[in-house]
Amino acid sequence: LEENEALANIDTVLSGWNESTARTKIMQFIDAVTDPNDPNYVKPADRIAVFDNDGTLWSEHPFYFQGYFALDRIKSLAPQNPNWQNEQPFKGILTGDMAAVQAAGEKGIVEVMMASHAGMTTDQFEQIVTQWIDTAKHPTKQVPYTQLTFKPMKELVKYLQQHQFKCYIVSGGGIDFMRPWTYKTYGIPKSNVVGSSLKLVFEMRNDTPVLIRQAAVDFIDDGPGKPVGIAKFIGKKPIAAFGNSDGDLQMLQYTTVGEPGLRLGVIIHHTDAEREWAYDRNTAVGKLDKALDEAPKRGWVVVDMKNDWKTIY
Amino acid sequence: LEENEALANIDTVLSGWNESTARTKIMQFIDAVTDPNDPNYVKPADRIAVFDNDGTLWSEHPFYFQGYFALDRIKSLAPQNPNWQNEQPFKGILTGDMAAVQAAGEKGIVEVMMASHAGMTTDQFEQIVTQWIDTAKHPTKQVPYTQLTFKPMKELVKYLQQHQFKCYIVSGGGIDFMRPWTYKTYGIPKSNVVGSSLKLVFEMRNDTPVLIRQAAVDFIDDGPGKPVGIAKFIGKKPIAAFGNSDGDLQMLQYTTVGEPGLRLGVIIHHTDAEREWAYDRNTAVGKLDKALDEAPKRGWVVVDMKNDWKTIY
Ligand SMILES: [Ca+2]
Ligand SMILES: [Ca+2]
Repeated sequence: LEENEALANIDTVLSGWNESTARTKIMQFIDAVTDPNDPNYVKPADRIAVFDNDGTLWSEHPFYFQGYFALDRIKSLAPQNPNWQNEQPFKGILTGDMAAVQAAGEKGIVEVMMASHAGMTTDQFEQIVTQWIDTAKHPTKQVPYTQLTFKPMKELVKYLQQHQFKCYIVSGGGIDFMRPWTYKTYGIPKSNVVGSSLKLVFEMRNDTPVLIRQAAVDFIDDGPGKPVGIAKFIGKKPIAAFGNSDGDLQMLQYTTVGEPGLRLGVIIHHTDAEREWAYDRNTAVGKLDKALDEAPKRGWVVVDMKNDWKTIY
Repeated sequence: LEENEALANIDTVLSGWNESTARTKIMQFIDAVTDPNDPNYVKPADRIAVFDNDGTLWSEHPFYFQGYFALDRIKSLAPQNPNWQNEQPFKGILTGDMAAVQAAGEKGIVEVMMASHAGMTTDQFEQIVTQWIDTAKHPTKQVPYTQLTFKPMKELVKYLQQHQFKCYIVSGGGIDFMRPWTYKTYGIPKSNVVGSSLKLVFEMRNDTPVLIRQAAVDFIDDGPGKPVGIAKFIGKKPIAAFGNSDGDLQMLQYTTVGEPGLRLGVIIHHTDAEREWAYDRNTAVGKLDKALDEAPKRGWVVVDMKNDWKTIY
């Protein structure tokens, strides 16, 4: 692993964590699987850890950050699409009438996602995302989105990598929305990002090869799709999984249930209304209900953000 | 990279190669991109090399080896499927009447592929493939299929890895057919294998998580699908691509055309009827026609197996 200068300030003594039960359980797991004399020792090639992104590595309220990217993108494309002034859900986005946007339902969301995410080459989309992540600000926190990444989790990723774990993101978010910035932000390289995707089509345009992003879903990496994404992209079962919502239930089950060796399942519980947001069973964004009920039965570690984290960001 | 004991006998002085123009061009490329003082220097994180499998890393005649796996699998499943005795193309496979199998056309091929590749869990399929690759023999060469892998190419993969390249397989073959044996055979780990796939579905069976292989194509990693597979799985453009047929044309274009830095495209040309097989424009298996025409224009290196390789296997 090459030295990632962008994360030079992230320590690996986990100073963002209080000396809590959750921290102790996580460290005991890492100690065991990396100790050649421990019966639960795992050789480096099999040390795979998977992390959900939204709500696990960065915040996700009041709405998934990729949603704000889509809204910002619609606004910047509006001059080229005059018809949007009269068509929902675009009109609602442009006039700030979010009730009208919501009224457009799932069909409306798909239209917005496709209009903002499809139709360009993969290189163009990477540039668009890079520019947005470098300049856009969160609507209520008023800071760049990458400043809303969780310092304790970045410490943990770096600590695991130092202990020869391969850390992967396995997110319901767009694979091509995440890849431009995950290395700089989390130290996780592009090839270790698994996510939802649109179909791509290869073309030679003026004797130059390009991949065009189609307005058609290729893969949804959420819920039961997460184990599928892991099998496809990684090809091996992880030994540790970190999530925060019911979208991670199957990934946590796939990683931890029915395995002979030691396994680690972790749920990040959003309990800190002051420093971040507090929510679990009653939210449309990052709902944590079934997985929270299953945690004690499965031995999953539940991290209480308010009490277990010294620092959030 | 961990030491791969299975490849201890593979040297990295490329002793399987004659001192040919092709070898020189390949070595000049590697020298340039790994020399910090060279204007074409590429940092380790971006040293990505992609290899086709059938015909590039192992033989593919008289038919793709995965095809023989499918035939062997149909034979071993026949007792549980008595109706196959009267149904084509299964009857043809069981009685050795390959003309009848061919007469069933593409629909017949799909039926055979699904009957042999779908319906089981991913773990079960891995066991089936592992047992087959450990025991099955090539119909004419009468040796295990992994003995029909090209020694000069294994040397090159190892040499590139020693020079901090990440080597990936990008094959039209099945991703789950290759992954069980690529590390032991080529030193290429599971996560670095890109291939065609069937759809997978997650299920909890008796409180145990499994992924069931569906009788439905998920992705065809061939021709224009190869750049798509690279973008999806690797997320970065390679700087070197190795192929042997028109199924690699777009991968070679995607890797080498329109890039500012130095790029390497290599075509393995099957010219040795004595030690292996000789074929290019007039074969149904591994047809090399358009890519051979395009090679001089694009500056791709064409490896003449008969003259450039001291050893084939
Ligand atoms: Ca989440
Ligand atoms: Ca081939």
